[in-house]
Amino acid sequence: MKPTKSPASQKPASAKSAAKSTGGFITLPAEKGEEKMVIELTKKWGADAIRDSDGTELSKEILDMGMEIYSTTCLVRAEQKYPREHMDQLPQKYLMSDPVTAQSATVVIDPMAGFYREKYVIDTKHSAKKYWEVIDRTTGKVVPTSKWKLDTKTGKVTVKGITPFHVYTVNFLVFQIWDTTSMYNHLTNNWNKPHVISVDPYHKQCWDHLMKFYDKYLEDHPKTDVVRLTTLAYHFAVDSDQDAVDKFRDWTGYQDTISVLALEDFAKQYGYRLRGEDFVDQGYYNAACRVPSKGYLDWMKFIHKFVVKYGKELVKRANKAGKRTAIFWGDHWIGVEPYKPDFLKMGIDIHVGAAEDGVALRRISDTPGGLVKELRLYPYFFPDVFKEDGTGEPTAESLSNWIKIRRALMRKPVDRLGYGGYLRLALKYPDFIEHVTELCNEFRAFKLNADGGESLKAPIKVAVLNCWGNWKAWINSFGAPQKFLVKRPDVIQVAGTNLLECLAGLPVEVQFISFEEVEKGGIPKDVQVVINDGDAETAWSGGSWWANPKIVEAVRKFISNGGGFIGCRGPSAHMHQGRYFQLADVMGVDKEVGSTLQSATVLAQVEEKHFITEGLGAKPDFGTNETFVYVCDRETKLLAANGLHVMAAAKSFGKGRSVFLGALPYDLTNSRLLHRAIFWAAGKEAELTKWYSENPATECAYYPKTKKLVVVNNSDKPQTTKVFDGQGKATSVSLKPYESRWI
Amino acid sequence: MKPTKSPASQKPASAKSAAKSTGGFITLPAEKGEEKMVIELTKKWGADAIRDSDGTELSKEILDMGMEIYSTTCLVRAEQKYPREHMDQLPQKYLMSDPVTAQSATVVIDPMAGFYREKYVIDTKHSAKKYWEVIDRTTGKVVPTSKWKLDTKTGKVTVKGITPFHVYTVNFLVFQIWDTTSMYNHLTNNWNKPHVISVDPYHKQCWDHLMKFYDKYLEDHPKTDVVRLTTLAYHFAVDSDQDAVDKFRDWTGYQDTISVLALEDFAKQYGYRLRGEDFVDQGYYNAACRVPSKGYLDWMKFIHKFVVKYGKELVKRANKAGKRTAIFWGDHWIGVEPYKPDFLKMGIDIHVGAAEDGVALRRISDTPGGLVKELRLYPYFFPDVFKEDGTGEPTAESLSNWIKIRRALMRKPVDRLGYGGYLRLALKYPDFIEHVTELCNEFRAFKLNADGGESLKAPIKVAVLNCWGNWKAWINSFGAPQKFLVKRPDVIQVAGTNLLECLAGLPVEVQFISFEEVEKGGIPKDVQVVINDGDAETAWSGGSWWANPKIVEAVRKFISNGGGFIGCRGPSAHMHQGRYFQLADVMGVDKEVGSTLQSATVLAQVEEKHFITEGLGAKPDFGTNETFVYVCDRETKLLAANGLHVMAAAKSFGKGRSVFLGALPYDLTNSRLLHRAIFWAAGKEAELTKWYSENPATECAYYPKTKKLVVVNNSDKPQTTKVFDGQGKATSVSLKPYESRWI
Repeated sequence: MKPTKSPASQKPASAKSAAKSTGGFITLPAEKGEEKMVIELTKKWGADAIRDSDGTELSKEILDMGMEIYSTTCLVRAEQKYPREHMDQLPQKYLMSDPVTAQSATVVIDPMAGFYREKYVIDTKHSAKKYWEVIDRTTGKVVPTSKWKLDTKTGKVTVKGITPFHVYTVNFLVFQIWDTTSMYNHLTNNWNKPHVISVDPYHKQCWDHLMKFYDKYLEDHPKTDVVRLTTLAYHFAVDSDQDAVDKFRDWTGYQDTISVLALEDFAKQYGYRLRGEDFVDQGYYNAACRVPSKGYLDWMKFIHKFVVKYGKELVKRANKAGKRTAIFWGDHWIGVEPYKPDFLKMGIDIHVGAAEDGVALRRISDTPGGLVKELRLYPYFFPDVFKEDGTGEPTAESLSNWIKIRRALMRKPVDRLGYGGYLRLALKYPDFIEHVTELCNEFRAFKLNADGGESLKAPIKVAVLNCWGNWKAWINSFGAPQKFLVKRPDVIQVAGTNLLECLAGLPVEVQFISFEEVEKGGIPKDVQVVINDGDAETAWSGGSWWANPKIVEAVRKFISNGGGFIGCRGPSAHMHQGRYFQLADVMGVDKEVGSTLQSATVLAQVEEKHFITEGLGAKPDFGTNETFVYVCDRETKLLAANGLHVMAAAKSFGKGRSVFLGALPYDLTNSRLLHRAIFWAAGKEAELTKWYSENPATECAYYPKTKKLVVVNNSDKPQTTKVFDGQGKATSVSLKPYESRWI
Repeated sequence: MKPTKSPASQKPASAKSAAKSTGGFITLPAEKGEEKMVIELTKKWGADAIRDSDGTELSKEILDMGMEIYSTTCLVRAEQKYPREHMDQLPQKYLMSDPVTAQSATVVIDPMAGFYREKYVIDTKHSAKKYWEVIDRTTGKVVPTSKWKLDTKTGKVTVKGITPFHVYTVNFLVFQIWDTTSMYNHLTNNWNKPHVISVDPYHKQCWDHLMKFYDKYLEDHPKTDVVRLTTLAYHFAVDSDQDAVDKFRDWTGYQDTISVLALEDFAKQYGYRLRGEDFVDQGYYNAACRVPSKGYLDWMKFIHKFVVKYGKELVKRANKAGKRTAIFWGDHWIGVEPYKPDFLKMGIDIHVGAAEDGVALRRISDTPGGLVKELRLYPYFFPDVFKEDGTGEPTAESLSNWIKIRRALMRKPVDRLGYGGYLRLALKYPDFIEHVTELCNEFRAFKLNADGGESLKAPIKVAVLNCWGNWKAWINSFGAPQKFLVKRPDVIQVAGTNLLECLAGLPVEVQFISFEEVEKGGIPKDVQVVINDGDAETAWSGGSWWANPKIVEAVRKFISNGGGFIGCRGPSAHMHQGRYFQLADVMGVDKEVGSTLQSATVLAQVEEKHFITEGLGAKPDFGTNETFVYVCDRETKLLAANGLHVMAAAKSFGKGRSVFLGALPYDLTNSRLLHRAIFWAAGKEAELTKWYSENPATECAYYPKTKKLVVVNNSDKPQTTKVFDGQGKATSVSLKPYESRWI
């Protein structure tokens, strides 16, 4: 039985709670033994749904509170007897040994030397000679299997008859003997429980076992309304070094989806075999920043198809048991990409995604298909932020997140909010409890005043162009500074440029397109502005795609015919035929990377007045003093510069326009700059001052369905702003710090 | 008649002046009508030689002063009737039109649109279809000649049947109708004389004409002792845009050495033809920063051979007339590279080179062959610095240059100093006249105390490894910041990193080697430390050479056997097989360029105490806050960092050692850092404190021949320092600002 679509988008999560209160739309984590707190917070925050967490259970008392009940299960790691009896059905992956420089004609490599031995064991079940590769990284050539030998006892590979002073690596298969999330929780929350092992449902026997277990689970949870799947089959990649410290992380990557069985099936279906090197990718592991290869993309399609099939089965069984399903993005969410059309075939009812900022919000709120969308807010009630000694600062973190989320929420709404973790930790912070109370009320005010409608957008559709398109819609395009940020592992923090975060709160439609799509069909007809934002030679910028004539033809044609182009960081960057920026002719700027050191730049003066830089209030921060980008065309209008380093520039091309931005860290000035740049690039300057809040610290959104306008103050100071209506008529509004005002 | 070698290195320039005074070793520019000043300054500065300048003449009175007479001639531009009658014997060059983006299937390109029409005319004598190329820069393919047509009247090229939105360029041949130096002097010194046109002696008729003219010149200058050739056949490249502003400059480039005749001869000799694209190089014009192609290197060899032949003839004729020859590096000096063995075949007596810093000094003083070496100091007596209104600051510029030059002079001496320009301009600055008086005396003190000997070097030979080796020994390896410096066109100023300048003053032997040499013969046996200093993908760093197994084998073997390696900026940088720095295994660091964003760095602490960073007195300035270089090996010793950005690191590899430096702008702290890094890399820490001045603002040099020690203060403040003798015994010395003290 498939439930009717999107029941919760207009009303509280379930019929049970619909009639109850002016509250609603909030999911609370609960836990056996904490019943009193649950009741108290349910009232205070207006919660209408209760969930359990990893490692917590719901008591009968909680289950009987009359609320919507979410029960969390991660099937592939739910039961721990089976994996221990079927160690050949654990998830596999290809790893590359740390490179070893040969000092003589023989080299001994311990492939596992740089990896955590409690997490991985080498695969000795399948033939190493068939599935492993030793590669001479100095020449790039595969070393013949006759030259090397794996000692299965020591796990070491001896390579003979090689060239001294060349570098060698081994691509090898492992089984994962410790689930990544389990390991993370052990380390972060100081768990001291048996290691959790996941299994791979790609194996028929495993699939059958899981389904049997699942049916039992459904039976055992009669009070559960929603099965919250966390998530489906494969975990995202986190590789751990010899000391259990993260050495590689790809939240969107397919590195952990491998089994020899699937490799063989792939070869049959696609007519070619994938090698270890296709996954190891010289040690770059096809990370999101890498321009994807055909082999990797084919593998993604192959696995995505399997995961959808698996998810469909889980939904079918839940529905049969009279339950709906929610899916939580995180943990085992690989293959679940909700922007891919096949996702909807599963019949999931509720999206749940964690959100720390506007990009994360849009990642959830823009998903197609009309599912109920629930936001899981940070911070999680974990001891890293909610320190037991009371020295944590959860309120500050939450507020900073919320202001970014609210900007994005004004453009694309979600249906519900929720929290996760251990409630008792949150209760130690009364100011946090109060803050969340206000936050929940403010969220409900948005729902009430919008009445299910969406705010009005400008007549501009923006397409973000990169290698991934919908595979990674609203996924952060990190730049090189990200590498040098010491991160908190559970939250996505962005170092440096963050154009997407600026974009997340702007009143335009946004879609994500890939070079593959542009190669086939050009720029979509309904798009007015194309954004290419990414570091050079990454998947975000496009790398070698820019040497593909079809791409530059399509993009130039689009702009020449009146389209807008916004390039940020390394737009169209790829060294080819005398240009680094392949669209240097369009943008009027190029980047110095060492080949034109002895050629002069065009000397340009910064334009004193330009539509894009008007009324910003403050000087934009391009995140760097030196872009090494120079003006290469006398028609270029320079908008901001440090000496000869171009920070922002604009240029006409045919009937269209282009804008270059050196980088764009998120702040209110930069968001406004992008706002204006989009309208200028689209040639729609006249549209800007319709439903527009002049002060860059403020923004507004108009809801045509209810004819209501909301004006928000995104800053920590009182602000006064002129607000323009749909006819461009202005009125003045004064707002308290962070206030949202409905008019 | 060949004069005896190097007469002036031990004594004044000629027998004429040898007996005269305690002065000597100074060449003065003189000029008809300024006789009184010439006599005055001759005494004051102790000049023993007189020269004319471009545009000045010497009077009988001056010629009869009894001094050594240098007469300047630049034969290829000396006589102006011949070129005007033989416009097909002017120097030619290949230019690339500015790129044009086609908006339809036809595009019209005016190749000269971006170039100065008073400097170049297109070559309509030779077949455009044979020598020109139209290139589709979107695909990189040459457009068939059937698709385009040159209108010789308008100079425009019409290309039909092409792909809209592709970019097209024309590689075309021009004749140069205005000599580059003449044009520069016109613009800088506001000359208002007829344009000077150079000719190309590659044409037999032109060669014969020049020789006839030259013989007459020799006859007409009976009092001339030294013919100062400025220089020989081909000017270095300065391309001028449509407004006569420099758009490209390569002081060491062969761009202006082309004639159709030479192209055809080359094809016969080398068995393959060079295309326009071989010279145009996608618009990069084989600039010094570009990794050179085989074709370009072959062309250099071909032209070098011709220039040597031409120079030999000029020397022969001068000697026959009883005169010696000097050669001035600059202007028409292409093909004269003094570090190439063929240079000495010419039989030149005196090197004259302009020097603004230690690198320029070493460029002259290190040349092999024992020629007399004369330094032409900056500033030139030109109105740009010696402003007529007295507001110039020539003394400050001279002093700043001199301190750098003096450092280098202590390691490798020259024989003479000289000035150029208009003496009357200098006389308006009495403080400058006094300053030069002191400078000349100080220089002579060095000569006197050294008595022809050279200072003692540490037992360390450093080889600077790049694509050019001896072709461009002691030529600055500019980095990307150079592009963003608004330069004075007559002096080489270095923006940002300047390792060579630091090196110029250190007590070690230095040689320059090319990858080609290393590929053939490995690292030379007598070398202890290899330096690879350059931006990634430039000729200075090496680019694709680092993917050549022979190179990495040789360098790794050298280090593993006990050699030292110092990498600066983009050492061994070339994206290949999972590494950006190909010697990441050796250096223990790699650079983030977008592929390893999701891989963690090794977290390392800066070493509190390390030989390299000890006793520097100040924090080294690596010229940037963000190198994007990270530690990739647990054995790496971090020496300096900004957060996770590595500024300096050290590591052992086999029996050898390597040092990485993010960048190294020139200053006294950084020079000392390099000093220590070289000794550490060579494993000769114990040798450091022999003939060593502890305070980094000071340096010393010991002259074994005279057993004298000089200690210098390179700073503008008094300094006290411990000075160590050859046994490591220290004494304390106090010095006035800038003082040099002989002990």
